[in-house]
Amino acid sequence: MKAVGSSGDAGQGLPRTSAVVISVGTELVRGEILDTNAAYLSREMAQIGIETVGHVTVGDNREALAQAVSRAASACEVVIVTGGIGPTPDDITREAVARAAGVELVRDGATLAHIEEIFTSRGRTMSPNNAVQADFPRGATIIANPRGTAPGFRVKVARAEVIVLPGVPIEMKMMWDQAVRDYLSTMGAGVLITRTVNCFGRGESDISEAIGDLMQPGRNPLVGDTAEEGIIKIRIRATAATRTQAIDLIDRIKSQVKERLGDTVFGEDSQTLESVVVGALLERGLTVTVAESCTGGLLAKRITDISGSSGCFTQGIVAYHNDAKVALLGVAPGLLSEHGAVSDQVARAMAEGARVRAGSDFALSTTGIAGPAGGTSLKPVGLVYIALASADGTVSKRLQLRGKRAEVRDRASKHALNLLRLHIIG
Amino acid sequence: MKAVGSSGDAGQGLPRTSAVVISVGTELVRGEILDTNAAYLSREMAQIGIETVGHVTVGDNREALAQAVSRAASACEVVIVTGGIGPTPDDITREAVARAAGVELVRDGATLAHIEEIFTSRGRTMSPNNAVQADFPRGATIIANPRGTAPGFRVKVARAEVIVLPGVPIEMKMMWDQAVRDYLSTMGAGVLITRTVNCFGRGESDISEAIGDLMQPGRNPLVGDTAEEGIIKIRIRATAATRTQAIDLIDRIKSQVKERLGDTVFGEDSQTLESVVVGALLERGLTVTVAESCTGGLLAKRITDISGSSGCFTQGIVAYHNDAKVALLGVAPGLLSEHGAVSDQVARAMAEGARVRAGSDFALSTTGIAGPAGGTSLKPVGLVYIALASADGTVSKRLQLRGKRAEVRDRASKHALNLLRLHIIG
Repeated sequence: MKAVGSSGDAGQGLPRTSAVVISVGTELVRGEILDTNAAYLSREMAQIGIETVGHVTVGDNREALAQAVSRAASACEVVIVTGGIGPTPDDITREAVARAAGVELVRDGATLAHIEEIFTSRGRTMSPNNAVQADFPRGATIIANPRGTAPGFRVKVARAEVIVLPGVPIEMKMMWDQAVRDYLSTMGAGVLITRTVNCFGRGESDISEAIGDLMQPGRNPLVGDTAEEGIIKIRIRATAATRTQAIDLIDRIKSQVKERLGDTVFGEDSQTLESVVVGALLERGLTVTVAESCTGGLLAKRITDISGSSGCFTQGIVAYHNDAKVALLGVAPGLLSEHGAVSDQVARAMAEGARVRAGSDFALSTTGIAGPAGGTSLKPVGLVYIALASADGTVSKRLQLRGKRAEVRDRASKHALNLLRLHIIG
Repeated sequence: MKAVGSSGDAGQGLPRTSAVVISVGTELVRGEILDTNAAYLSREMAQIGIETVGHVTVGDNREALAQAVSRAASACEVVIVTGGIGPTPDDITREAVARAAGVELVRDGATLAHIEEIFTSRGRTMSPNNAVQADFPRGATIIANPRGTAPGFRVKVARAEVIVLPGVPIEMKMMWDQAVRDYLSTMGAGVLITRTVNCFGRGESDISEAIGDLMQPGRNPLVGDTAEEGIIKIRIRATAATRTQAIDLIDRIKSQVKERLGDTVFGEDSQTLESVVVGALLERGLTVTVAESCTGGLLAKRITDISGSSGCFTQGIVAYHNDAKVALLGVAPGLLSEHGAVSDQVARAMAEGARVRAGSDFALSTTGIAGPAGGTSLKPVGLVYIALASADGTVSKRLQLRGKRAEVRDRASKHALNLLRLHIIG
């Protein structure tokens, strides 16, 4: 697998340390639990200049794991194994790694005493099973586990560093933070840093066209894009000898990307449409309310996901039924009978009614057919009207969204937030 | 890896078809995107008696992927590869699989014409890049992609079936449904079926205690539990020669589990608290409304997630600010000043006010401190009051929830739904 490091978009010039992450657990290979450890460790290693070239997941099988460790250790410099170090007979990682290293397991007295102590302090007696957690491959260095009874360890297999950590994410992350990151940091050649520019409102192909020349493979920084739930994330990855150099490289490309994409860009890194909108409102001392039909609370939920949103959001109305649109938002019954609940006119009346009633600067509304039922040839599933009322008047938008109920509702709420965002910054 | 099939809890006696799932993408190995395809396919294959023994993730590297395919094909009967079949130079799966199969790529005229048609129908011209999507290893059977331009294929490598699907989950799943599942069904030896019993309102250790004797390793059915966002899912997995036998085995254990856990069990398999509550309301012709403070729309969103919820839910109020609690729900200002917004009294008044105003059978309310800010020593972050108003009067509950803002809001909305569920079924 080592060849991956030399391919395509892996950066320019710097020799790289490569890694494989192995996750152990029958429930993982069966898909009953989603493995997030491998992705987490890969991102963390990238930050210290170690490039992950493969993930492997195996069940609770000694021989399969020993093989996977040997193979990974012969192909790269770092192997991280998570899982399988508990006290039960299913926990085969200690033995498998010892086998791959060609050494025997030896019991560590200090660790054993420590495990016994933990049980005593909890007022329990240690069962003999737990003693195996004090076994380590001969020559291994023990890595303390501040949150659980199972310590990790590191040991050489061929010329690779094999690092064994618990599968429980919270324990694994704490041990990574406290002991492993610094140890491995000395091995990475340079740093690899990724930043993202987040866009909404234009298609992926449109965006690729606008910045296609920056997306050529092999460049440094390397620019790529992914679409996640209607958000296009443009990732800019730079490899350099130092963090400052990498960030410098990224910043230059980032400003080009932002200039070309204009107001399609709503934020960076972990920013969301709702965090940006709430931030912009709070900054300006403005307030918003919502009047939701098809999104049924999702728009209010998104806004109140953001801590501090009470500074710009005081109330919202979910008016699912026509009667509620009349009673709670003052929509004229005649509008509903003439145009139907899913119409531009009703979306505008909902927003205007909500704004007056809440006494807010802005009001957003949604009305549409989320599906799967309720569509007609004139008003198919996915048809949604959104509106924004403000002191300057009301603007609205007709959307024809694709996908299932959850997607239609998700996109409708995002378009509504984006309508407000564009109004505020525009 | 084949040996995994004979280990631990893999069932009793039946010869099993084994599989490896390979996910392709540099963004996956770097941890920038979380792979959910491997887990999905493993669960699906288990349903048709194929046991996944490993997952492998490689970057966009031809040689690494060819090696991974060869190795998997020599160790098991089924290999599924997802990703890397788009039109760009990064998409190396076609070539890598052809190399593993020891054949060349040949262009399929019908597929090429079909891809051109898709572009024409969208009013665009096909770029020459896209032609590579009509290339397949010689001898491969093409698998149509009803949602995208990239078809999949299957081809023999050694004695294994290698099946190549797109990485985009929605396309992959559709192709699995339409073509792959049935094809592979003929290969499974016996079936492995998993069913889940979903619980809410009791801790995991409580539940383990109640059904611990059913959870011994090596049993068939095998019973295990996982906690996901406050929901405890008890998985019952049976291996048998036929589907009927497996379901029979499961049903016997399932009824024991349900009897012991009583009303902690709210549903099975994909049922959620909201789907169960909405179903129960619709069945009985009853209606509910909501009055939300700390959940800020999430409770309404959960109810309206369910298609058909308009039959039992007509409106909801998000009363985030005290003024909104007074104006929209008729909460007495004196209650707010005397007890504070986060209090049992206010929760009850919110529910009662909402019920009268909506004219519904039930009303649920939430008021609490979601955090991270706003907590005090008397009313810490995570303190939430929920209430249920009905014709029989009002009941309420004080919760002290743990976790971050999103978790507190999630759990509060689940407890509110559960309060209504227990009332309806009680």
